[in-house]
Amino acid sequence: MSIAQMRKDDTGRLSPSLAARLAIRRGEHRGSTAGLAPGYVQGNLAILPERLAADFLRFCQLNPKPCPLIGSSTPGDWRIPALAADLDIRTDLSRYRVWRNGELVAEPHDVHEFWRDDLVSFVIGCSFSFEEALMADGIEMRHIALGRNVSMYRTSIATIESGPFHGPMVVSMRPMTPANAIRAVQITTRFPSVHGAPVHIGKPEMIGIADLDKPDYGDVVPVRDDDIPVFWACGVTPQSVIATVKPEFCITHYPGSMLVTDRRNTELAIM
Amino acid sequence: MSIAQMRKDDTGRLSPSLAARLAIRRGEHRGSTAGLAPGYVQGNLAILPERLAADFLRFCQLNPKPCPLIGSSTPGDWRIPALAADLDIRTDLSRYRVWRNGELVAEPHDVHEFWRDDLVSFVIGCSFSFEEALMADGIEMRHIALGRNVSMYRTSIATIESGPFHGPMVVSMRPMTPANAIRAVQITTRFPSVHGAPVHIGKPEMIGIADLDKPDYGDVVPVRDDDIPVFWACGVTPQSVIATVKPEFCITHYPGSMLVTDRRNTELAIM
Repeated sequence: MSIAQMRKDDTGRLSPSLAARLAIRRGEHRGSTAGLAPGYVQGNLAILPERLAADFLRFCQLNPKPCPLIGSSTPGDWRIPALAADLDIRTDLSRYRVWRNGELVAEPHDVHEFWRDDLVSFVIGCSFSFEEALMADGIEMRHIALGRNVSMYRTSIATIESGPFHGPMVVSMRPMTPANAIRAVQITTRFPSVHGAPVHIGKPEMIGIADLDKPDYGDVVPVRDDDIPVFWACGVTPQSVIATVKPEFCITHYPGSMLVTDRRNTELAIM
Repeated sequence: MSIAQMRKDDTGRLSPSLAARLAIRRGEHRGSTAGLAPGYVQGNLAILPERLAADFLRFCQLNPKPCPLIGSSTPGDWRIPALAADLDIRTDLSRYRVWRNGELVAEPHDVHEFWRDDLVSFVIGCSFSFEEALMADGIEMRHIALGRNVSMYRTSIATIESGPFHGPMVVSMRPMTPANAIRAVQITTRFPSVHGAPVHIGKPEMIGIADLDKPDYGDVVPVRDDDIPVFWACGVTPQSVIATVKPEFCITHYPGSMLVTDRRNTELAIM
């Protein structure tokens, strides 16, 4: 019996998360994973040479709000059993970014040809998990309603450095009413492994954001007069840091092409 | 053995809360109870004729954020055993307000002469409890630092009516940094019986507050450029509602002269 068969449910169907990974592995799904396998945790990916792995792991531990580590591999291994039984990190993301000395050198659909025996994979929690909990509570995610990516900004908030890793925290911004902002603090506090509570609220200039209409990543999302902008630490921070550090080699996910895991979003709630 | 003796601790001392009530009962303490018996729950008081008690009780249940009921008496009884063993509601507040048909008729230090066999006492949670938790976390309470009362405002948020009871919600405002505002949402969420999480954040005009420098109750507390005003439902709401309803008779506490109970603030935390 294959692992794929083992993951079939009682009615013989594949679990939605494995079905998503298999579709991606076979090249049948090539776009964003937003909305794919609802209820299952998706993650940001960073793959680094073993030589940098210990420093990066400590960087994640020192900066748990932007870099909440939810899984990692042993060197050279393309499996991460804690996140999914049938997983090949070389093929199971719909698109990757390959970097050499900080330069983007490829955006392939699988990374077999780039694989090395010294590579360590890190999977970092993603806001898709808490957005699902917010929407389940009736809070509008404006960027989703508009079919856009969330607005992201490099801030004046410094991460805590570890070895060569350092640089500014990236935040995502969601506009909402004050009452929803309060509720969103309560809900996201329950999910520390996917960025947790906001890091800032209102007053973008206090964290070095000069213009909300000029995000550094993602799309512009309109903030209405009765909205308050709410800022969460963002899983793009490691990509920004890696762009600063310019490691000899690394692989990340392509924006929006996340790793779909077998863990459920509800599992991540601490209470 | 008297009840007072029963409440002595192992070293023979009175508990701080009973010591505070006895000092007030004997006329030895006549001012504000802010800072008295640290760690013990203090409460807002409303005493109403039995004829209005059921409607007021339902009003509290319908409006738990401004009117979190933490104790009540049977008609004519001056004791509330759930809140304190040795308690006489007629003497144990340092000052009262007595109202007839909505008019303030007296501000006595005890209410023996006004007592009636049909009076029911209601004790409503007070922000002193959550302020203690916020300060324990290192969050400045500006009004306390300045030796002032908190700023309070009548808002455009309507309470849910019950019988004759209706009127606008009163809120208290505390200015703080955005990071502290997020932390304050988390901390006060743990204390639903003392107003719980804020009801509003930023943007005073959205809840009908035209000028933060013109509070309807309490003192002006400065809001700095890097502050965000955070608004909590306030235990003054019942007094505002009673002023609107103009019941034939009622007694409340004098502002700042709260009931000191034997319950501990930490008991009120739901997690």
